[in-house]
Amino acid sequence: MSEQAPLTPNETELRGLLDGRWAHVRERARDVVRGERFAPVYGLSVEEHRARTLDQLMALTETDMPGYGFPESVGGSDDVGASVVAFEMLVADMSLMVKMGVQFGLFGGAIKALGTDDHHRRYLPDVMSVALPGCFAMTETGHGSDVQRLRTTATYDPATEEFVVHTPDEAARKDYIGNAARDGRAAVVFAQLRTPGPDGLIEHGVHALMVPIRDEDGAALPGITIEDCGPKAGLNGVDNGRLWFDQVRVPRTDLLNRYGDVSPDGTYSSPIESPNRRFFTMLGTLIRGRISVAGGAGSATKAALTIALRYADTRRQFTRPAADGRPAEEVRILDYLAHQRKLLPALARTYALHFAQEELVTGLHELSRSEESDDRAQRELESRAAGLKAVATWHATATIQTCREACGGSGYLSENRIPQLKADSDIFTTFEGDNTVLLQQLTKGLLTDFKDSFGDLDQLGLAKFMAGKVFETVIERTAARPLIERLIAAAPGRGDESSLYNRGWHLELFEDREKHVIEGLAARLRRSKKDGSDAFEVFNQAQDHVLEAGRAHMDRVALEAFVAGIDRCGDKATAKLLNRLCDLFVLSVIEENRGWFLEHERISTSRAKAVTAAVNELCRGLRPYAVPLVEGFGLRDEWLGAPIALGAEHRRQGDRD
Amino acid sequence: MSEQAPLTPNETELRGLLDGRWAHVRERARDVVRGERFAPVYGLSVEEHRARTLDQLMALTETDMPGYGFPESVGGSDDVGASVVAFEMLVADMSLMVKMGVQFGLFGGAIKALGTDDHHRRYLPDVMSVALPGCFAMTETGHGSDVQRLRTTATYDPATEEFVVHTPDEAARKDYIGNAARDGRAAVVFAQLRTPGPDGLIEHGVHALMVPIRDEDGAALPGITIEDCGPKAGLNGVDNGRLWFDQVRVPRTDLLNRYGDVSPDGTYSSPIESPNRRFFTMLGTLIRGRISVAGGAGSATKAALTIALRYADTRRQFTRPAADGRPAEEVRILDYLAHQRKLLPALARTYALHFAQEELVTGLHELSRSEESDDRAQRELESRAAGLKAVATWHATATIQTCREACGGSGYLSENRIPQLKADSDIFTTFEGDNTVLLQQLTKGLLTDFKDSFGDLDQLGLAKFMAGKVFETVIERTAARPLIERLIAAAPGRGDESSLYNRGWHLELFEDREKHVIEGLAARLRRSKKDGSDAFEVFNQAQDHVLEAGRAHMDRVALEAFVAGIDRCGDKATAKLLNRLCDLFVLSVIEENRGWFLEHERISTSRAKAVTAAVNELCRGLRPYAVPLVEGFGLRDEWLGAPIALGAEHRRQGDRD
Repeated sequence: MSEQAPLTPNETELRGLLDGRWAHVRERARDVVRGERFAPVYGLSVEEHRARTLDQLMALTETDMPGYGFPESVGGSDDVGASVVAFEMLVADMSLMVKMGVQFGLFGGAIKALGTDDHHRRYLPDVMSVALPGCFAMTETGHGSDVQRLRTTATYDPATEEFVVHTPDEAARKDYIGNAARDGRAAVVFAQLRTPGPDGLIEHGVHALMVPIRDEDGAALPGITIEDCGPKAGLNGVDNGRLWFDQVRVPRTDLLNRYGDVSPDGTYSSPIESPNRRFFTMLGTLIRGRISVAGGAGSATKAALTIALRYADTRRQFTRPAADGRPAEEVRILDYLAHQRKLLPALARTYALHFAQEELVTGLHELSRSEESDDRAQRELESRAAGLKAVATWHATATIQTCREACGGSGYLSENRIPQLKADSDIFTTFEGDNTVLLQQLTKGLLTDFKDSFGDLDQLGLAKFMAGKVFETVIERTAARPLIERLIAAAPGRGDESSLYNRGWHLELFEDREKHVIEGLAARLRRSKKDGSDAFEVFNQAQDHVLEAGRAHMDRVALEAFVAGIDRCGDKATAKLLNRLCDLFVLSVIEENRGWFLEHERISTSRAKAVTAAVNELCRGLRPYAVPLVEGFGLRDEWLGAPIALGAEHRRQGDRD
Repeated sequence: MSEQAPLTPNETELRGLLDGRWAHVRERARDVVRGERFAPVYGLSVEEHRARTLDQLMALTETDMPGYGFPESVGGSDDVGASVVAFEMLVADMSLMVKMGVQFGLFGGAIKALGTDDHHRRYLPDVMSVALPGCFAMTETGHGSDVQRLRTTATYDPATEEFVVHTPDEAARKDYIGNAARDGRAAVVFAQLRTPGPDGLIEHGVHALMVPIRDEDGAALPGITIEDCGPKAGLNGVDNGRLWFDQVRVPRTDLLNRYGDVSPDGTYSSPIESPNRRFFTMLGTLIRGRISVAGGAGSATKAALTIALRYADTRRQFTRPAADGRPAEEVRILDYLAHQRKLLPALARTYALHFAQEELVTGLHELSRSEESDDRAQRELESRAAGLKAVATWHATATIQTCREACGGSGYLSENRIPQLKADSDIFTTFEGDNTVLLQQLTKGLLTDFKDSFGDLDQLGLAKFMAGKVFETVIERTAARPLIERLIAAAPGRGDESSLYNRGWHLELFEDREKHVIEGLAARLRRSKKDGSDAFEVFNQAQDHVLEAGRAHMDRVALEAFVAGIDRCGDKATAKLLNRLCDLFVLSVIEENRGWFLEHERISTSRAKAVTAAVNELCRGLRPYAVPLVEGFGLRDEWLGAPIALGAEHRRQGDRD
């Protein structure tokens, strides 16, 4: 991209490209989620908001949304991709988004993934109709991220053919459980499964069971203690609570027994022998929630950018003096470079992540339909989901914050929606996996193709592994690999001689950075191990390097997805505009990380300065297209619900004339 | 700092150093702001919160706090520094902090600064007692940042010796005005002053008048329309509103006439001839609000860091395997490098900004007491206030966000205070001057020692000026200049040969960066002007460079203040600890900006990598002192009001054993 001739992007084409494979699901959501019942509101009390959210959830049961993710055998449409896309469309109130995710995705999803036909038949229809509102009771107070060490117990009693579910101490109370404080009637409870053996209890690790928690009237059942988590920064339409179990008995058949079962006499059996592998297989079936959160973060980001960019395109501040025959006029704030720099690189990254999300959802969807299990594909999907969830939610937090500031005092008023988007999405960086933990998990996945060999993801295991094996970098390939390789092959090689806008150079540079960071990390871990250093310390001291590797990987993944997305675009002018936007994504990533590129002599100092100049140039060139580009997201005006995004500022200025 | 031997910092010494010159004011606040009446609360409705905040403000009138900033002639103690410090101590509820700032700082402060003895006598006692709750009605919907162009008019009518205050259009309505929606009885209204002349009205620019807005019963007075801004992201204890004036008449004597007066016959007079200079002089008297916000942002940051670091010091997650005879144990999250990197560089910067704030308050205080006016000192103070407000509030927003994430789900619960700190302080980056505008203002101040020559701060004027004059860099000097120069003189010179921990090298590097960025900017502006480029475009295209210059300046200012602060420390071990913290501040700034340092060949690539390693090393070395360092801030436990910061996690873990 060197010239900046005006373009006429095609709106329909752009919308179609962004809507992607599940365009029909998006269109359906645009059709269904409207009117007073779904409109964004603010200023509700916690109880009012909870009641409204439940009412909205009930309204969704009149649509086909609840069935997307469930088997046809129980009345669903068995379209996992659709279930994730539907989740992200509920941006009009993110409490509804999350409440829906808890009911159908986490609670229903766990029954589907960890249960067997009997559970599906008995429970899923009531899950879909919300006749059985339920909880996903995994997280404990003492162990948020470290699921493997949770402490709730489920002990089998052969005498009555029941499991006894119990909370042994405060660390083991279930915490932050959605649907628990008000609406949930049952919970999928994760607990350490124990069966009687000749020498006492035998531990089988974490398993999940269906446990009723409230009666028809909403009262806690005997042995169940429920506490409200109380008000939160956001998402107050979701009733998070705490659960304690005091020797609560459930029938043997309510163990979700796909990956581990107990016979009437107490004999444990599992299709997966290694307890460690079993644990990670079970967790792996639950990644839909994580992928959904990445998508929801994307929607919140898009909504905030739509509001901020529409406002910046109309809001005027300070006067540009008359010059060159042009009269003095108040300047639209989006005409300021500083304002462009706040919002446009964020918009470019939002596009990149959108395409990466589409690829991820497709991957999940395909894997869910494949008959035979593919361990490597599953593992790659898990790594990708971990990484994308982390970068997409951090991007949401940073971008929505920037949008708040870009809208000044207007962005602080509840009526303009941004405060709610900020507060609601804020938890995304730490729920469904803490981002820092997830990014490490991604890097560990990248470090080796033989994850099973060290399996338990702990720091010691990894360092040991690194010491013993020849390292092999695994650059996972995105969908558009042949295209990517063609572009790289056409690049004029390293160094300063290629154009700053050469896509092949971009791709090669990002790939090179990822490879170098990962190889450097592997070498560092191996070296320290040889020194005989303490494995925990070795890994801990490299933690910044570990996180850097994850970020470098995700930058490459996002770029490749962006390139592949543009390749699918049928309209030339639209593709050209998207290529400019992709240039901005790439060059702003290089600018942000130019310390690294300079340190490692990947770019010269003059090239680094040229990158900054090019980012400025691209911002200026893209400024006229900022609003059309956010319109491409197709968020309904009523979902935005912000006067400053809906013509209030323009009308006010009109009044003045 | 190369060795990392254990230190025993002295708590009393540290507290005394941080409490600084107004230690007695801080102690008094610790004494007064306690108990149920001042305790942090959450979950209140907007109206409940407003009532509580007013009640707290009334409680403060029983102390000497309201009088700090007012003349002795009206019962105050004429201690401006104390008034700023008292403001920042009200962190138990930032709504109270801001409400107090509106009443005593903005409303009362404007009467004091812009009014004369008669106004002081008539109004200030009632301001201090809150018998007259008032508003500072400057901001208009159409012109938030561009105060000079506000549109409310105050037209003199000699027939009745009154001013007619009027809102000509929607752009001119007063917006976001604190105290307006519920409690205010009067407002200091900023308006374009006009007097009748032989050929129609003569414009005199922006002036301020006292305008009553509500009667004794709280009803809006005739001609006054008041609207509630409604719920906001935070600060809901402050009743922000909108004001319209329909030909409202006020007596001639209610013009705050220190800088411009109108005689009974309508003749305008002013001690300052240039309207432009008059405008900026009037605005300049109001910088106390901006300085207070910088301090308040500091307090919010300290509170969030105190909560997050105390929690991180007790919270455990994931297990460190047994090694070297040490048993396996769950790791405290502050022992992870990634967690240290989230919080400790932010803590170091918080210290640096604390000392910079103390210097700024001292500067304001001294200037307020000096008999003769010192234009240069005043201008430097304004630049410094603009810059510190910008960097301190951005730092608050970023750090409190990080603290939220560092506390995981606990950080999202309202009971743990961080959500409120985040939401309340969020507006700080854009009120009392939008940060981006302020940082530009700072740079413009730095660009020349002759601000009056281009005066009006617009972009054209500046570019014109740059083209015509020889550029002279003005590195403003901080308090400890002789010390700084001694340290720089002792530095072994540029390049890699000096220790990474050599303070002289740090100081020189920061100064060199600032100088280079500013000189480069000046050259760029001058060059473009010679080309005959459009002045607005020239400046706009350099806007990222302009902001970079402001940031570079403030990094140097913060470092010098930190160095000067340590120099005042009487205890050797405490000073040593603070020197380590200062190293972390410096090296994390270098790391963050290493792109620039490398691009401009200020450091080598190997030195850049060594800086990253040193930041890691410093984090590890400072980890044991993190909690003592936040205790130094002296925030009362009851102000934090967060169970996770008050032993809940520790007790829970104890229960388990």
